[in-house]
Formats: sequence, C-alpha cells, structure tokens
Amino acid sequence: MTLENDKQLRHRAEKVIPNGMYGHQSVLLLPPETPQFFSKAKGAYLWDPDGNRYIDYLCGYGPQLLGYGHEEVDEAYIRQLKQIDVATGPTPLMVDLAEAWVGLVDHADWAMFCKNGTDATTIALMTARAYRGRKKVLIAQGAYHGAANWCTPFPDGTVPDDRAHLISYTYNDVASLEAAVEEAGDDLAAIFASPFKHDVLTEQQLPDPAYAKRARALCDEKDALLIVDEIRAGLRIARDASWSLIGVKPDLTSWGKSLANGHPISALLGNDKAKEAAGKIYVTGSFWFAGAAMAASMVTLKLIRESNYLEHMIAMGDRLRAGLNEIAERRGIEISQTGPSQMPLIMFPDGAGGFNMEIGYEFTTGLMRRGVYFHPWHNMFISAAMTADDIDLTLTAADEAITSLSHIAV
Amino acid sequence: MTLENDKQLRHRAEKVIPNGMYGHQSVLLLPPETPQFFSKAKGAYLWDPDGNRYIDYLCGYGPQLLGYGHEEVDEAYIRQLKQIDVATGPTPLMVDLAEAWVGLVDHADWAMFCKNGTDATTIALMTARAYRGRKKVLIAQGAYHGAANWCTPFPDGTVPDDRAHLISYTYNDVASLEAAVEEAGDDLAAIFASPFKHDVLTEQQLPDPAYAKRARALCDEKDALLIVDEIRAGLRIARDASWSLIGVKPDLTSWGKSLANGHPISALLGNDKAKEAAGKIYVTGSFWFAGAAMAASMVTLKLIRESNYLEHMIAMGDRLRAGLNEIAERRGIEISQTGPSQMPLIMFPDGAGGFNMEIGYEFTTGLMRRGVYFHPWHNMFISAAMTADDIDLTLTAADEAITSLSHIAV
Repeated sequence: MTLENDKQLRHRAEKVIPNGMYGHQSVLLLPPETPQFFSKAKGAYLWDPDGNRYIDYLCGYGPQLLGYGHEEVDEAYIRQLKQIDVATGPTPLMVDLAEAWVGLVDHADWAMFCKNGTDATTIALMTARAYRGRKKVLIAQGAYHGAANWCTPFPDGTVPDDRAHLISYTYNDVASLEAAVEEAGDDLAAIFASPFKHDVLTEQQLPDPAYAKRARALCDEKDALLIVDEIRAGLRIARDASWSLIGVKPDLTSWGKSLANGHPISALLGNDKAKEAAGKIYVTGSFWFAGAAMAASMVTLKLIRESNYLEHMIAMGDRLRAGLNEIAERRGIEISQTGPSQMPLIMFPDGAGGFNMEIGYEFTTGLMRRGVYFHPWHNMFISAAMTADDIDLTLTAADEAITSLSHIAV
Repeated sequence: MTLENDKQLRHRAEKVIPNGMYGHQSVLLLPPETPQFFSKAKGAYLWDPDGNRYIDYLCGYGPQLLGYGHEEVDEAYIRQLKQIDVATGPTPLMVDLAEAWVGLVDHADWAMFCKNGTDATTIALMTARAYRGRKKVLIAQGAYHGAANWCTPFPDGTVPDDRAHLISYTYNDVASLEAAVEEAGDDLAAIFASPFKHDVLTEQQLPDPAYAKRARALCDEKDALLIVDEIRAGLRIARDASWSLIGVKPDLTSWGKSLANGHPISALLGNDKAKEAAGKIYVTGSFWFAGAAMAASMVTLKLIRESNYLEHMIAMGDRLRAGLNEIAERRGIEISQTGPSQMPLIMFPDGAGGFNMEIGYEFTTGLMRRGVYFHPWHNMFISAAMTADDIDLTLTAADEAITSLSHIAV
C-alpha cells in the first residue's frame, strides 16, 4: 500500500489551503496513514489517489445513506439540472419537496430548505428567538450543532458575545435540564437536543425517554420550542423524526447531510405553532432554492418510504457489532461499541474510565491497510449499499488488526 | 399572459412553507404579476410554470455569469458527479481549484471553499478576529454581507449580542471611516467593504479610490485585515479582485454566487499574512469539499481567463444603459441608472431626492408582461449569454412600458 500521490497532493495543498485542509475533513488528527484525498466513489467503496480501495464507514460523514453514486438519485439530479437548477426563483419541485417532507415527518407542518446543516440549526435558533422574542437557548454540553461563530466547538475567531444567552445542560440528565430551564427564567426560547448523544471522543448514549419527555413538557410549560437536531442521525434512526420512536414530538427539527443522498441540501422542519416565527426572520442563500438537489431529495425520500434501506442498515450494523464483540472476546481485548449499531462509535477503554487512543489509532491504521476506513473517535455511518460480504471482509480485517495490536493492548 | 399555474403553486406553498416563500427569492415585495416559480432555464431565458418566457436580468441574483445551462460547465459537473462528489475526504480537484484561484486573483495566496456566500463572509469575520485576537469589525451602513444571525439585515430572531463589536461607517466617506477606526481603538480586527456600493433601494456608487486606499492604509497602520466582499460583484467587474482596477489589494476576499456559474460553491481567498489566522478557526460543512461543483468552477475559471465574457457583458450593459437613457429622454421621464452597466440598478427619481416606487413597479410590470424580467429596487445582472438582440428586444419592451406609464410619471 502506497500513499505517494496523496502525499504529493498534501504538499501542494499546504501551499494554497490553510493547514493543507480544514474542518471535519482534515486528517491532521487522524492516523498518519489516513489518505487526505479520494479520487473515486461507488456504492460502499472509496478509492484514494493511489488506487487503494476502502469499504467506507464514514459515508462522507453521513451524506451517503444509500451508497455513493446512486444511479436513480443522481439521474434525477442530472435530469433536473438540464431543465433548471439555480434561477431567479425556486422551481415547482420546492413545493413538492416541502409536501413530501411534511408527509414523511409526523411533527412537521412546513419546511424551509437551505444548504449547510449549520444553516438549518441557525434558522432553528433564530425561529425560536423570534417565537416569543426571548433569548435563552439550552444546548447540551459537548453537543455539536454546526460550525458558525455562534456554535463552532472551538473559540478561535469568535467573541464571547457570539454565544450570549446559550445555557448548557447535561444530555439525558433531567435535573441538569431543569436547572438550566430555571436559570433561563422567563426568557427561555428553546431547548436544543440531539436525537441521541453522538459527541466525539466519548461513549454515545441513546436518549433516556424520561429526559426527552421532560424536555417536551418543560417547553410546553414555558411556551418555548423544542428543537431536535437530526443533521447527523436523521433518516438513519427512523422514517420520521428520531424521537418518534420514543413518542416525543419536537417543534422544530434540523436536517442535513443525507436528505438527498449526498447532494447539497438541508432543511428545517417545523410545526404550525412555530410557523409565524419562521416567517418573521430573514434568512437566505444563493443556492438554497436550487432545483437539482430537490429532485434528488424527492427520489431519496421515495426510496426511504418504499425500500428496506433502514432495516438493512440496522442488520448490517448489528452484524458488524456482533462480529467485533466476538473477535474482542476471543482476543481478550475490551472494546466499546456505543450508539445505534447503524451509527457505531468504536473505541478501546483504557481501564481508567477513559479510552486508549493509541490502541484506537493502531486499530484504525490496521484496518486502513486492509482496505477498511474506520474512524478512531467519531461515530461512523453504515450505508444501505453495504452488503453482508462487506461486513464479513471488515471483520476479517478487524480480526487481523486486533491480533497485530494485542501487544499494545495487553 | 396567464399566471394560473404559478398561482396554484403559491397556494400550495403557503400551506407548507412559511409565508409561502422566504429570503431574497420571495416575491412578496415585488409587483403582483411577478411569477414566484420558474420551470425552465436556458441561456439568457427563464420560463415560468405557465410557459411565459422572460429575458432574465436577475441571473438567479448573480450566479448565472455565462448563462443558464452552460453545456461545458454542466458537463464538467456531471462527469465529476459520476466519479466522486461528496465523500469522506475532498478530491484532488480541490487543490487544482485552490491553485487556479490563487493564479487568477492577484492578492490571494490561499483559498478555502464553502457553500453559501454567508459562509465566506462568516469565515472572513472569524479569520479577522483570530488574526490578532481583536474584536471590532467595521461594516458600511446598509451593506449586505449575508443572512446569518450576525449579519442579517432584519433583526427578528437575533439578539443584539449577535452584532456586538460591529461598528458602522458610511461607504466612500473617508472621515466616517476614520471615525469608526478611532472608535475601534486598539481592538480593530477588520474593515469590510463591498467592491462598490450595491445596497438595495438606493443609488449604487462606484468606489472612490481615495476611500479604498484609505481603508487599505488604515488596516496597515492598525495591523487589521481589509476584507472585500466580492460575492455579488466578483467576476463581473474584473478577472481579479474588483479593487485591482483601482490598485488596492485586500487581505481577504469572499466569493460566491457565480464562481461555478450556478453550481453551489463559495470561497474565501486570502493572503499569506492572514493564512495562520485562517488555519486557527474551526469552520466546516458537509458539502463544502464536494468535487462536482469544484469541477464546474474549474471550467468557469478557464472560460473567465480565455473568453471575452467580461467585455461582452460590459458591451451589453452599455447598450442597455444607452438605450434606456435615449428612451427616457425621448419620453420625457427621468431615469436613474447607477452602478457598473453590467450590474445595473434602474429606478425613477421622485423629484424630492428619493425614488418613486410606484413608477418602478409599473415599469417592471410592463416589462414582465412583455417577457423581460427586471427588478424595481435590487441591482440586476447581465450575463454573457445575452445578445444584442436580447438587449434590443428589452429596449422595445421598455419603450412600450415607459409609454404606458407616462400618465403616472407626469
């Protein structure tokens, strides 16, 4: 395995891109043998510029729900592109798509489309503040809701004022949520929550229904809005908002990444209670009304309604999880697998309540060398394009990788 | 001319989209006969859902530089889409594109790509604040730099803290700029400027070189960054940053709309002085690294370098301006045409220092009925796809429209 072309590209990139790359796709905090660039993608596979093939468990960090280069979705995009895409007004497809979303997601009465996930969370924030003219917004400690100046996880380039009126609470902790609501007093605009706790570098947690229900009740009591940020998890948990599985209806849900299987579109969905507030704010973007990504999303939603993509992803995730547990047990190494199996986070406990990143990096590197792209500290994503053979190849690679790292682990 | 299908779409949209539409593409503040939706686009033309054809002087509010459905650009998009678009890492094209931009724009040593124009201005803001850890940013009164909570022109849904440390000054007014710098004291991070004053509802102004040069000198003196926001004007003024025409080099320029002729991509370009600061901030987006829009931008940049698109747009703008002046003079109506002729703003003075919006609406409506899409209070955009015949058809329609409104005008 060589990464020579990737290395040359990195060298060129350093000259014309700050740090050579930025954001979540920079590999600076990943093992050194992680390719920075990719040259080809199809189905469950990625190829780097040196021709190495990987079964990709990141799926573009989420967008690839049905697999790379999905023919039916991409054909819809191309057909629409030839008719009309970005123009001086939206296409009729925008109405079709808003209707389709409202039909799919139970809590939703309306939709607004945008481009970035961060657009959708920013519109949610603004809608919640416009709702009753209040300022305080509760956000779970460590949760990621985008990378604009008000929400980026790192403070460089921001001012403390950017995060004014944001109050933090602990996910799944009712007492902490109640204390934060108390702190907001009569100025509570909204509670933000992720469908489950999918923060980096720490165990994922499924939502405690008591917490989700308390968040709903507190918002009702205070006439504030409950926002669930579905950008990462949406469409991988349910064919509806994720908390439909635990019987809690948000007022607003933000969606991104996967809603057109990789084509650029995001959305805020809301209920009638929040509609007037959403209509008061001024938000827009040059490409938000473009038709081609909406055509792709129409087909994606159709496949979501009509195919077994979700059951298949869960089956593949379960197969991976069970296989890895079996290997770890057989090799005598402790492994942490958390979150829904179709969005797994896999790390290695350090025996002191934390995680051993050295082992995680070695394991990921071992898999990389064997054609499997895993992430050592970010949740991964199963796609509907993965087959049982892909999972079994992954397990064979994982068995070898775990064997070769056991000298560190023991 | 009927707008029956458009009307039905609006009726459906009201149910599932707040206000039926939002942002700059809502027609709520435009004449009632303005279609909200479009079903087809090609070259210089748009068709509404009722089959009415328009010569489109908005060009999607800027993105269409070379005309709708440009074959060579779109083919590059589609070819790349079939190879790899959104993935777990960027494609090698991202390096090619950063190099191409740095080659085209004299002040630039590096590039970061994103999706919305607002992304590019937000990254500029954050980079400027990261540069020396300072907070104050100067923005011209009335200038539009995006629609996130820190910059949206309307306050609903925002809190005053979102705009903390922004100081306003008057475009082209050196004394006002100096006073704002004085107010910032030793906490000046940046001065934002548009390439020319292109605010809505008011005359456009070309930049006074004395103002641009003073902005540059003040930034140098205070070790702050000069940011020119090229999102609306970029590539329509020069084959370089717009202020290259007056000999002023910004530290940062934000680009959007037209850099891939309608495909979704925006960019921040910067010089080496600002590179370390840009590398400190954390900004990202799920679709920012996607290959297809970068392939489209590579072809767009090639056509910018190699074709006479700019000279042609200026010639068409000049032809339109001269023709409208001739008609107005002949019909005895006063007309205001401001800004570069390829980005014209056309309004009707009210004789009291303001503009008569009633005449503007009547004129726009008269043109709309004759197959020409004009805007009564926002600058318009010439595209390279427009021909002398399109301009002459427009002038014929304008002559008729002005004749039929002269009872109001007099």
